[in-house]
Amino acid sequence: MDVMARIELALESAIKGTEVPGTPPRLAEAMRYSVFPGGHRLRPRLCVAVARACGDDAPELTDAAAASIELLHCASLVHDDLPCFDDASIRRSKPSVHKAFGEPLAVLAGDGLIVLAFDLLARAAAQRPDRLIPLMGVVSRSVGVPSGIIAGQAWECEPQADLSEYHRAKTGALFAGATMAGAAAAGADPTPWRFLGERLGEAYQVADDLRDVAADPEEIGKPVGRDAALGRSSAVRELGIAGSLKRLDELAESAIDSIPACPGQAELQALIRMESRRFLPKDLARAAA
Amino acid sequence: MDVMARIELALESAIKGTEVPGTPPRLAEAMRYSVFPGGHRLRPRLCVAVARACGDDAPELTDAAAASIELLHCASLVHDDLPCFDDASIRRSKPSVHKAFGEPLAVLAGDGLIVLAFDLLARAAAQRPDRLIPLMGVVSRSVGVPSGIIAGQAWECEPQADLSEYHRAKTGALFAGATMAGAAAAGADPTPWRFLGERLGEAYQVADDLRDVAADPEEIGKPVGRDAALGRSSAVRELGIAGSLKRLDELAESAIDSIPACPGQAELQALIRMESRRFLPKDLARAAA
Repeated sequence: MDVMARIELALESAIKGTEVPGTPPRLAEAMRYSVFPGGHRLRPRLCVAVARACGDDAPELTDAAAASIELLHCASLVHDDLPCFDDASIRRSKPSVHKAFGEPLAVLAGDGLIVLAFDLLARAAAQRPDRLIPLMGVVSRSVGVPSGIIAGQAWECEPQADLSEYHRAKTGALFAGATMAGAAAAGADPTPWRFLGERLGEAYQVADDLRDVAADPEEIGKPVGRDAALGRSSAVRELGIAGSLKRLDELAESAIDSIPACPGQAELQALIRMESRRFLPKDLARAAA
Repeated sequence: MDVMARIELALESAIKGTEVPGTPPRLAEAMRYSVFPGGHRLRPRLCVAVARACGDDAPELTDAAAASIELLHCASLVHDDLPCFDDASIRRSKPSVHKAFGEPLAVLAGDGLIVLAFDLLARAAAQRPDRLIPLMGVVSRSVGVPSGIIAGQAWECEPQADLSEYHRAKTGALFAGATMAGAAAAGADPTPWRFLGERLGEAYQVADDLRDVAADPEEIGKPVGRDAALGRSSAVRELGIAGSLKRLDELAESAIDSIPACPGQAELQALIRMESRRFLPKDLARAAA
């Protein structure tokens, strides 16, 4: 099956499991709205790609790992969009969850997605109980405290923040969670896969900064020019557009070079080379091709 | 070791694990503030009591289960106190988390505590990996969707709510999670332990309604008279004070009668009989003695 179809199916089945008699209907609706329709599903696709490169001998567990990473990503978007943080009205080309359902349901939908992510892992591990502990370990580290995406977001509340720590936690952590969870789901040691995820997370951050100055808002489904408006640090502010494109290439190359020896190493290298161009806004990708 | 000391130690060790270099300091502070000083720690004490009745042959896992239940309880208090829900200024006799740290850190501290709860279970299961799946199952069901405390809170956002469903999910679910997690941590089948938790949750709800009309705010660490002020349904409104006290006794008796056969059955029965009086505000407990 096509990777994207596989991921959508796993997410659909996870969300479907919450839409049962007894669930408050508006909460179920808000949770589905938070997850569908999705964005590029970069993190779960990366998770599946790594699991495949490692043999993917427990595809149900791979699917659960990928869906779990994406649910946690969606939860973080819903909470980060809240009025007390970014106060974002638009996400993925539609009203943000709190705009559509109100703040209480946005808080609860995010909470519910976090719990669902862990529940999913435990249920899928029935056939491979020995893989649950390492899988839970990498997933919880990628979202929690001290260095997951929740900690990353919390750096925005500190009077002083270490910017590289902030970006590593806010973006890199869940990309590293994706590669490591893919490896753990396939029974491989997740540790050597951390660097690949962290580098791709950094590349994504640079590409996101480029999109913020150079993309069409319709293309990316959210407003542009936010970094400059909010005085945020950004690769483009630091390196310019050409410098940022060069940095993106270097990051992608060092990510590719780091891929550990595994049955599907060559294919994964080719895939990541191809995909790293897709992070870019269309005009820049054409210009850089 | 005394049960209360055991629980405080498990919670202290969990929170300590987040206070490491790399954690945003204000987030770490807000998480500690959310958990300490605690309330009565009813749910984790119940969890440990059930594990002990079942033999408690993996005390580290019992401690993790109890701490995990309490962390999830604390997370729900922090999120439920937010301005978009109860807008509570005082909790456990001090400013609520969002009053002390601001809304962003209250959202993130709650999120962080949820992730920490699951992380704790996975780490403690290293010696007993076969128990992790049932344990995760009961814990995630007690907080998540369709019928955990998150769903319970979400009933407040519905135009129409089934009140018994609301109370069962909002309060009963985590008490049932506590009894079932205690059993699962000790390697027993958690299912027969659900009823005990649900009944005690219901009893707690009745006692809470009584406290809301009859307690001293200093005694319970939060304002009283909220149910009447907010037009909430309440056992006291339905049954009066005497009727509510009678209902509380019935619930405690049926809870005690439901305790499954296990090595520590008699002790657990005696403990719950004694403790069920402690739910009450002091004056009423004296009057009912």
